[in-house]
Amino acid sequence: MNKKPSLHTSLSPALVHLYDVSNATVVIIDVLRATSTITTALYNGARCVIPVDSVSRCIELGKQIDGITAGERDGKIAEGLEYGNSPFEYPKEFIEGKTLVLTTTNGTRLLHMALEKGAKEIVTGSFPNLSAVCDHLIETKRDVILGCAAWKDRVNMEDTLFAGAVISTVRDHFEINCDSSHMSEAMYEKGRKDLFSFLKKNNASHYHRLMNFGLEKDIRYCLTADGANVLPIYSDGKLIVKS
Amino acid sequence: MNKKPSLHTSLSPALVHLYDVSNATVVIIDVLRATSTITTALYNGARCVIPVDSVSRCIELGKQIDGITAGERDGKIAEGLEYGNSPFEYPKEFIEGKTLVLTTTNGTRLLHMALEKGAKEIVTGSFPNLSAVCDHLIETKRDVILGCAAWKDRVNMEDTLFAGAVISTVRDHFEINCDSSHMSEAMYEKGRKDLFSFLKKNNASHYHRLMNFGLEKDIRYCLTADGANVLPIYSDGKLIVKS
Repeated sequence: MNKKPSLHTSLSPALVHLYDVSNATVVIIDVLRATSTITTALYNGARCVIPVDSVSRCIELGKQIDGITAGERDGKIAEGLEYGNSPFEYPKEFIEGKTLVLTTTNGTRLLHMALEKGAKEIVTGSFPNLSAVCDHLIETKRDVILGCAAWKDRVNMEDTLFAGAVISTVRDHFEINCDSSHMSEAMYEKGRKDLFSFLKKNNASHYHRLMNFGLEKDIRYCLTADGANVLPIYSDGKLIVKS
Repeated sequence: MNKKPSLHTSLSPALVHLYDVSNATVVIIDVLRATSTITTALYNGARCVIPVDSVSRCIELGKQIDGITAGERDGKIAEGLEYGNSPFEYPKEFIEGKTLVLTTTNGTRLLHMALEKGAKEIVTGSFPNLSAVCDHLIETKRDVILGCAAWKDRVNMEDTLFAGAVISTVRDHFEINCDSSHMSEAMYEKGRKDLFSFLKKNNASHYHRLMNFGLEKDIRYCLTADGANVLPIYSDGKLIVKS
């Protein structure tokens, strides 16, 4: 019998060094809202999404390649950029055929960490592409690190819930000796009936932050499975749809 | 109205730098089994417990002060030491009036980290002294960091559950803007009816490790509230009972 590949969950970028990514697929998870927006833009026909770690780099690259520049700081479109972090800003009629240069803090940093540590493959995960992620992990039969982007290294609820959602689907295909994974799954099982209410009831910090910005619609979309079900995969500095 | 003190949970020593311990009480949590054994030894009349970070330091100090040396590595009493990590090794008739020099890896390291970062006060927490910890935190009205010792920096289930147990008792007395805390509490609420079964059902790594060593009795004791309900407090290099 072949040994099953392993699956681990890193609840914060500050913990990712504990796991061996060198032969693994790393799933970057930034549910509210970076990875939800990335899969949405790609689903709606964006040519690619280029994640960058600073506003200045976003502006510079946007000019160089004539791309759409996007990113927020403290809940507002960052100065010098054109668009924000909401998946609703990227419908098909706007984004199709275009390149999105997106600056995020937590997700992009984690992606670059995984890259530097020699991850075999990097994809992005969010509820809108939950099934695409799970199908890919099961098909690939490679070790998996579910990497939560968290918030300035602090563990957050929505990324943990997404890790749990993946695990509850793929668990039989992996060897899982990882309390973080089992905890994520237990948390998801507790909240799965109504993730929005679960975040509210448990006082998730991003729930409050985004509600204060009037973004209930964004939260609900970002917690709904398979609304933009493609697999963003990182290749040569950009995220494209896995064909 | 006075502002409530804050409460945060650090799920791993690798995350403790994210929190300001300088005006806080840090609760060191190493449920299986270091902090359960510490409170048990003190409850049973040990004069004090001196936590040290290596076997050689344990042996050296044991000789210098004529103390009981104890500690395990890989589930066995470490070479050169006299006793192990089990709370059942320290009944009143044995430990009363004696000094226990205990070497643990995860818990001791976290304690020294908290000390170096200038923690205002350091106590140890475990289910056997759950009420003593909660009463102290409520009375003291100081900011709190619940510090899980984890396992080689990897988050573990039983320490998280204990953090959740504390939070479920003290929550009304603190301002809690911390997803790790809310997640810990949600996890505890899910498992509280039968923590032993919860660890088993969710494949907690230490559950399996200790069961393989035949230590079910230890696990059950370490998950039971208030069996040795005193408050170990760190002062001048040793843990003593708070009077």
